[in-house]
Amino acid sequence: MRITKFAIPEIIFGHGSLDHLAPCARRLGASRVLLVSDKGLESSGWVERVMDILSGNGLEWVYFADCSSNPRDHQVHQGAQIYLEERADVVIALGGGSPMDTAKGIGTIVGNGGRISDYEGANKIMRPLPPMIFLPTTAGSGSDISQFCIITDVARRLKMSIISRSLVPNVSIIDPQVLLTKSEELIVASAIDAFAHAVESYLSLLASPFTDHQALRAMELIMANLMPAVERRDPQALEQLSIASTAAGMSFSNAGLGIGHSLAHSLGGMFDVLHGLVHPVLLPHVMRYNLPVSVDRLAAIGRIVVGPRMASAESIARAGIERLGEFFAGLGVPVRLGQLLPDRSALETIARTAVHDACTLTNPRAVTWQDLLAICEEAW
Amino acid sequence: MRITKFAIPEIIFGHGSLDHLAPCARRLGASRVLLVSDKGLESSGWVERVMDILSGNGLEWVYFADCSSNPRDHQVHQGAQIYLEERADVVIALGGGSPMDTAKGIGTIVGNGGRISDYEGANKIMRPLPPMIFLPTTAGSGSDISQFCIITDVARRLKMSIISRSLVPNVSIIDPQVLLTKSEELIVASAIDAFAHAVESYLSLLASPFTDHQALRAMELIMANLMPAVERRDPQALEQLSIASTAAGMSFSNAGLGIGHSLAHSLGGMFDVLHGLVHPVLLPHVMRYNLPVSVDRLAAIGRIVVGPRMASAESIARAGIERLGEFFAGLGVPVRLGQLLPDRSALETIARTAVHDACTLTNPRAVTWQDLLAICEEAW
Repeated sequence: MRITKFAIPEIIFGHGSLDHLAPCARRLGASRVLLVSDKGLESSGWVERVMDILSGNGLEWVYFADCSSNPRDHQVHQGAQIYLEERADVVIALGGGSPMDTAKGIGTIVGNGGRISDYEGANKIMRPLPPMIFLPTTAGSGSDISQFCIITDVARRLKMSIISRSLVPNVSIIDPQVLLTKSEELIVASAIDAFAHAVESYLSLLASPFTDHQALRAMELIMANLMPAVERRDPQALEQLSIASTAAGMSFSNAGLGIGHSLAHSLGGMFDVLHGLVHPVLLPHVMRYNLPVSVDRLAAIGRIVVGPRMASAESIARAGIERLGEFFAGLGVPVRLGQLLPDRSALETIARTAVHDACTLTNPRAVTWQDLLAICEEAW
Repeated sequence: MRITKFAIPEIIFGHGSLDHLAPCARRLGASRVLLVSDKGLESSGWVERVMDILSGNGLEWVYFADCSSNPRDHQVHQGAQIYLEERADVVIALGGGSPMDTAKGIGTIVGNGGRISDYEGANKIMRPLPPMIFLPTTAGSGSDISQFCIITDVARRLKMSIISRSLVPNVSIIDPQVLLTKSEELIVASAIDAFAHAVESYLSLLASPFTDHQALRAMELIMANLMPAVERRDPQALEQLSIASTAAGMSFSNAGLGIGHSLAHSLGGMFDVLHGLVHPVLLPHVMRYNLPVSVDRLAAIGRIVVGPRMASAESIARAGIERLGEFFAGLGVPVRLGQLLPDRSALETIARTAVHDACTLTNPRAVTWQDLLAICEEAW
C-alpha cells in the first residue's frame, strides 16, 4: 500500500450538540468571533440562536452574511477585510457548503494574505488559518469535515478547487435537529451530493483502507434513509443522513474525488445551479465512463444499490448504475443535463475547464476534454 | 442518540511513512525535540534511524529512554524535567504503548505542572500539551490514536487511567514495516490488546455510530490476519493488523472501555505483566459477565468470530465467547489467571482497585468489587 494521509476535525455530533459551541470557541481562544452565515438561514432562526449562545457566554461576535449559494471570490475578500478590521480571533460558520466554504476562504486570506485565486489547486496554503468551528445545516457538502474549499472566480467564470490540510476546521459541531427545518429539495440535493462524494472517493486513485469503508457506509446509509427522510421527515432517518454525510466527508476529504465533481465545478462556475442537483444528471454517466478500469469497485457499489446477487462483477456494476439512475428519477429531480442548461453552447467550455480541475487528477480513468464533452452529450 | 464526540490525530500510514517525520515536526514548530523511546527499540535500529532523520533535517534532539514496560510516575517526571532543562519544543515518541504513554505524561507535566497523579481520571487536564508526534512500533496499544494514558503510581501500586482530549497527539505516523522486526509474543500480545479495545469499546455505554463500525472492522481484521502474521510474518497481514489497531484506537479512544481494562490496569499496577497478555485470560469472562445486558452486541461479535449462522442472538453470542477462548488458547498464550499470578492473595485488592478505574464507568453492566472478584476467580 502506498502512503496515505487521513485527517478529520474534532467532531461533536448529536441533538443539542450546539450547546458545546461556546466552550469550544473559548478553548480555541475566542473573545470576538466572525460569524459567517447566509440570509436563508436567518429566517430559520438558527442565526439568532447562535448569536444568543455567543452573547450569553460573554463572547463578542461580528456577523457576515454575504454568501451566495455558489460563493464568490469578492465575498471572501470582503469577509477577510471585516475579520481584520474588527479584530476577530475565531471564525464560526453556520450553514451548508456555501457559508462554510466562504469561511474557509476568509480564513485562508486572513492567515496567508494575497488573493484567493493564489491558492487554487492542491497544497498551496503555507501558513496556518485562524481557528475555525463549523456548524453544518445540511447533510451533504462535507465542507465541515473536508480539506476542500470551492470558490467561484467571477472574472474567469469558474469554480476554483482549493485543497489543503489547513482547510479542515478545528471542530465540526453537527446537530441533526437543524435538518428538520430544511426544504425537501435541499435534503435531496444534499444527500445526493454526499452520495456522489462517497462514489467518487471510493473510485479515486487515492482511496485507502481508511476511506473505503467510510465511503461504502455512506452509500448504504443514504440508500436506506433518503426516502423516509424526505417523505416523513423521520428524525432518525435525518440523523442517519447526517452520519452518512460525515462519513462521505471523511472519505472524499482524504481520498479526493473525480470527474463528476470536475464537471460540476466547471458547470457551476458558469451557471448558478444548486451543486447537489448536478450529480443526478452526471453521476451515472461518470460511473459508466470509469467502468473499464473500476469493475470490482463499481460492483461493490452495485451490491449496495441493488442488493447482493450472484452475477459477474460487470453485470452487478451495470445493474447498480441503471438502478441509481431510476432512484434519482424517482426523487423528482432533473436527470438530464438539458433540464439544467439553456442550450448546448457552453458544453465545450465546460469540458475544457473541467479537465484542469484538481478533482480530475484522482479520477481512476484518464480523460481528455473530448471525453468529458462526450459524457455531457450522453447526459444531455 | 445522545451527543457524541469523535477526535483522532492526523494519521500518516504506510510503508516509508517515517520519511514524513521531519516535515511534520517542522510544521509543528520543532527545532529541538525530545525523543522518547526505550532500550528494547535501540537494538532494533529504529531509534538510530529516527535520530538520523532528525539530524539529517537540521533538527536537534534530546534522547530519553527511561520507559519501563509499565511506565511509572517517576519516569514521567524525570522526562518532563529533561524536556524543560533542555528547552525542547516538540515530543516525539517511538515505540509501543509504554514510550507513547510516557511521552503523554511528560507532555502533561510540561504543559500543566504538578504531579502526574493530579490528572488521574477523565478530563482533568486543563492546559495544552506541547506538540506530539507518535511513531508506533506495535499494532495494539492504540496510544498513538487515543485520549488515554496509563501510568503506574509506584507508591500506590496501581495503574492510573488518565483520559483527556489533550492526550491525542498531533500526528501519528504509522509505518507497518517496523512491525517486521517484532517478536511473535509481542505481535500476539499487541493484536489481542487491540481486539480487547475493539470488544470493550463496542460494548461501552459511550459507543456511537462513529465508533461501532471501527470496532467491528478491527475485530474482523484481527481474526483474519493474526495467524498469517504470526506464522509467516506475512507483510500484508502485518499491515492489516496495523490498520486494525488504528481502527480499534479510533473506537476506544472515543467510546471508552470496560471492566476488562479496569482489571488489567489494576493487575498491571501490582504485577509487572505484559498488558496484552492479561486480556486472553480475562476477556471471555468479562464478555460473559456483560451478556445479560449486551446480547445483541455480543451476537454481532459472535458472528465475526464464528461466522454468520442461523441461531438466537444469545446462542451466537455464547458460541463467539467460547470460540474466542479456543482461539486465544491456540495462540500459545496463558489463558488462566493462575498462570500469570503467584497465588490468589492479591485478587481482592485487584478487584477493589479496579472498581474505581475510569474504565469501569463505561462498562455496560454495573459492577461491585465482589463481581470483579468473582470474574477473577472464574478466570483463575
